[in-house]
Amino acid sequence: MIVNYTNLIKKVKETSVPKPLSGTLSGHAAGEPFDKHVYKEIKKEFPKNTFRQYEYLNDLFSKNPDVIGFEARQDLLNSPTVLFLLSRGKNATDSWSIENPFEEKQNDTADILVVKKNFYELIDIKTRNLSKSAQPPNIISAYKLAQLCAKMIDNNEFDNFTINYFEIDWLLEKEELVCKDAHFGCLFNANPADLYINWAAAMQIQFHVCDLDQSFKGTREQWAKAYLKHFVTQAKKRADYMIKQFVKPFEKYLINTK
Amino acid sequence: MIVNYTNLIKKVKETSVPKPLSGTLSGHAAGEPFDKHVYKEIKKEFPKNTFRQYEYLNDLFSKNPDVIGFEARQDLLNSPTVLFLLSRGKNATDSWSIENPFEEKQNDTADILVVKKNFYELIDIKTRNLSKSAQPPNIISAYKLAQLCAKMIDNNEFDNFTINYFEIDWLLEKEELVCKDAHFGCLFNANPADLYINWAAAMQIQFHVCDLDQSFKGTREQWAKAYLKHFVTQAKKRADYMIKQFVKPFEKYLINTK
Repeated sequence: MIVNYTNLIKKVKETSVPKPLSGTLSGHAAGEPFDKHVYKEIKKEFPKNTFRQYEYLNDLFSKNPDVIGFEARQDLLNSPTVLFLLSRGKNATDSWSIENPFEEKQNDTADILVVKKNFYELIDIKTRNLSKSAQPPNIISAYKLAQLCAKMIDNNEFDNFTINYFEIDWLLEKEELVCKDAHFGCLFNANPADLYINWAAAMQIQFHVCDLDQSFKGTREQWAKAYLKHFVTQAKKRADYMIKQFVKPFEKYLINTK
Repeated sequence: MIVNYTNLIKKVKETSVPKPLSGTLSGHAAGEPFDKHVYKEIKKEFPKNTFRQYEYLNDLFSKNPDVIGFEARQDLLNSPTVLFLLSRGKNATDSWSIENPFEEKQNDTADILVVKKNFYELIDIKTRNLSKSAQPPNIISAYKLAQLCAKMIDNNEFDNFTINYFEIDWLLEKEELVCKDAHFGCLFNANPADLYINWAAAMQIQFHVCDLDQSFKGTREQWAKAYLKHFVTQAKKRADYMIKQFVKPFEKYLINTK
């Protein structure tokens, strides 16, 4: 890992950001200023290595103006696994130009990207209003993560990237959001068998970063295989549940209908 | 039906509401003022019969101050089917009092309720920004609708309520949202076999009201049975799809894992 999260936690604790102008303090919009705040802190430490995900792609393509078209531009990211995590679609990549760069997209995998010597550290910022007890937030699509694990195994790429989560716990005090605490978790240090998949919520893995167990001791390859086992088991369970919950109870009403 | 929607469309067309203060015009928050606007128009016509869903329950319980507790209060809505659509949970109903009435809840079934001679007309307002091409909005949980149909059949209640959708198409002009068009659709006039269920989006039925087919000619009982058939068929299909998409492609990675 590149970023020292213990130091980062110390730096952001008790700092504050202005309350967003938009009325409600619900949802992730409320904590968004903290995302930019953490980005600035990391960029201070690693000014040449810290990017927003779309910035990194804009930077990479700008430095290679002769490389044109989807496939050639994909090759610039010489890792199929990292490519899967960071790249945009074919049309968007084909039509990219210095005059028409990428803009921020809500479903980008990472909020912040720190890149050093071909190692990619993806960081997603989660913000939490301590005055409310909220459901755990969406982390990443369980299906996307399964595809990622398959790519890691297929390409034997286990050590060139990581996915980290950083949680900011805040409270509204006067007209400011004050960071009361912060937490860090690495996805690949969590026991994959414990990850909760919410199938009805776009198959999202959900957890509060502060609750994420970090006890996994195996290799990254073992993690990928263990996650795939978990994902397949859970998908089968969900399919069985659907029959039990959504088919069986209603079958008696189908008699005598064409 | 109680409300004359053809007249309502004429009344709201070319009317405008102030642009909401909160920054973005995305999502349903933007069109919310139109919901209140339509409510006022209907209430002008039926002042004693028009309610917000929570208002109706507050009104019903207030008029029956001697009726206390969840079950007794449930009995006030002498229709199990309408009860299923409108009631709040046990704890909320138990603790209801004139000093502690219900407030608006985002997942209430109806935005507006028109009640006349034991007939309940549920109206949900959908607003649409014509300058953007958006996904069809969430209409109702496909599972909730299946439970509703089962209740209709179990209780032989087919004619004491309806569920209608009213779409407001608006554009931002200067600092106002202007209603450019409006559309009406009755859920039970749509062919149930054509309703799209988005299983990954909380099992929501999704459609634009303006695109809703209104050609179903059968009885309400036939509708309920046809919908249940559709729901069960789609649930089975989704369970099969899950195995095909989320289990099969990953099984090869599970060999040699404990």
